[in-house]
Amino acid sequence: MSTPATQAPPAPAPGWTEIVEAHARIAPRIRRTPVMTSESLDAMSGARLFFKCENFQKTGSFKIRGATNAIFSRSDEEVKRGIATHSSGNHGAAVACAARWRGVPAWIVMPRNTAAVKCRAVEGYGGTIVFCEPTATSRRETTERILRETGALLVHPYDDDRIVAGQATAAKELLEEMPDLDAVLAPVSGGGLLSGTSISAKALRPEIRVCGCEPQRANDAYLSMTTGTLQAQESSDTIADGLRAALAERTFAILRRNVAGILLVTEQEIISAMRTVWERMKIVIEPSSAVAVAPLLKPGTLAGMKLPPRADGKPAKIGVVLSGGNVDLDSLPF
Amino acid sequence: MSTPATQAPPAPAPGWTEIVEAHARIAPRIRRTPVMTSESLDAMSGARLFFKCENFQKTGSFKIRGATNAIFSRSDEEVKRGIATHSSGNHGAAVACAARWRGVPAWIVMPRNTAAVKCRAVEGYGGTIVFCEPTATSRRETTERILRETGALLVHPYDDDRIVAGQATAAKELLEEMPDLDAVLAPVSGGGLLSGTSISAKALRPEIRVCGCEPQRANDAYLSMTTGTLQAQESSDTIADGLRAALAERTFAILRRNVAGILLVTEQEIISAMRTVWERMKIVIEPSSAVAVAPLLKPGTLAGMKLPPRADGKPAKIGVVLSGGNVDLDSLPF
Repeated sequence: MSTPATQAPPAPAPGWTEIVEAHARIAPRIRRTPVMTSESLDAMSGARLFFKCENFQKTGSFKIRGATNAIFSRSDEEVKRGIATHSSGNHGAAVACAARWRGVPAWIVMPRNTAAVKCRAVEGYGGTIVFCEPTATSRRETTERILRETGALLVHPYDDDRIVAGQATAAKELLEEMPDLDAVLAPVSGGGLLSGTSISAKALRPEIRVCGCEPQRANDAYLSMTTGTLQAQESSDTIADGLRAALAERTFAILRRNVAGILLVTEQEIISAMRTVWERMKIVIEPSSAVAVAPLLKPGTLAGMKLPPRADGKPAKIGVVLSGGNVDLDSLPF
Repeated sequence: MSTPATQAPPAPAPGWTEIVEAHARIAPRIRRTPVMTSESLDAMSGARLFFKCENFQKTGSFKIRGATNAIFSRSDEEVKRGIATHSSGNHGAAVACAARWRGVPAWIVMPRNTAAVKCRAVEGYGGTIVFCEPTATSRRETTERILRETGALLVHPYDDDRIVAGQATAAKELLEEMPDLDAVLAPVSGGGLLSGTSISAKALRPEIRVCGCEPQRANDAYLSMTTGTLQAQESSDTIADGLRAALAERTFAILRRNVAGILLVTEQEIISAMRTVWERMKIVIEPSSAVAVAPLLKPGTLAGMKLPPRADGKPAKIGVVLSGGNVDLDSLPF
């Protein structure tokens, strides 16, 4: 993932047609999540905010969109020996759930130090956990071994057009419901959600500003976008446990084309935004979701986005993808 | 409040007409809150549950419905010197908010030991807090003094037909959206919400079963209903801080006519239900709301309700009023 962008031509991104097909494929199985508003957060941000509540999505995050699309867009032959992936978080649970829907087994490679609550989620959906050491090498080797031993199909968390097309359906629903957004914010980790969001948003509203949001402590997307060269994730010690991966060539290429910038937030800003959403909106979001709220609660973010004034003279309309709601209530940061 | 029911004839309850009028009056100001479902909680309960999410209501609880109706159904002359009430909780914030909407001052009598977060809520809506000692006598005397000194109008938390009619609008919305419910559950304290719920539910679906839900540690409604005589609240040391009041003659009379029974839950059952809703539904509810969920997570409750089998042969449809979402994140019980 530290390969310069110039060495490998970017894989072709999923287009609008693939996203529409993905949506039709997954719509009977996933939730069309609500878009919520909050007068309190509007007042704090100076904008009009529209929160796409993927915390209410099946399995508790948007990840089920991509996983369902990836698994249900394959032939019976391709999936008959099962699905494998590596994920310590929401993607693992989503793959386990979608594989069960498809009626095939799922193997989820997870580091030994994964929180018990996340292991229970995977097992709850009938997935088989395969533990590895908490290193990238062990994760890769363990995944390769499982693929060899089982003949399962790999469903990568984000480096996969089918995944990107699935994740893109959240922003498709958001823009269908709120067609005149001036900007949309989503968290960025491996870039599956943000790249999908950007394709849908630009397809439905070409003039929209799409911004990624990232912890300062896991700022590879910010560095990649500002240098124009794909950067490795040097450190990822952030409370936003869903945002520790790094961009792939595939997702980076989409972001370079579609995304206006990456907004960085501190750990304290993430925790404070998470608490504000719980208290004011009465919904449970996980830290990774709060990463896309936190920039809007800081002075200067809105001005820095340099959005053109609206024709109606009213404050900017900004969509925010709340990516998930899976938190361990036994270890809250407040 | 310990007067036997036979000594005073019950005050006439608000009828359906008053509730329809109340709804038209308050609808432009309050939220029409969503009705949420949860496959997880359906599986746990053996029923199909429909949660009326008053935790998303303005001011964070259903109380704004009654307060708005009580304050906006009065003439300018009646409210011009302001509004007064006594409440350490959601009713106080609701009265402060509705009084501000009406453009008149509000005085909220609160015990000195009220949590700071609740004081901030009242002040945030522009209400003036008047502290009293944490005794019923001090509360009454302080309220009477404020009424004398200011000429304000008293808006009682529940012993008031206008309040009952306002609280009734939550169940009206629920039944309008889900007309074929077999039962509806709501927490009971002073009985404003439960009595209003029962009038709306019975008006829209006469065969519906209406149940109150109450902490074992604050079981005056249970005792009043089982003895047929209004009982005082002997003890109210419960985590469900919104349910520490006792029924009034007015609300007791309505419950006797409309309510099938009162379901009791332990403190541990309240905490466990609250946690289950946060984890599975990803919404923040306060302990008082969890009191109406907890019975459904216990084996035997559904069977004990003896609901007639549905014509469609499917599991019972049960509405649950989630009364509010105001919790202090600094002192969670888990």
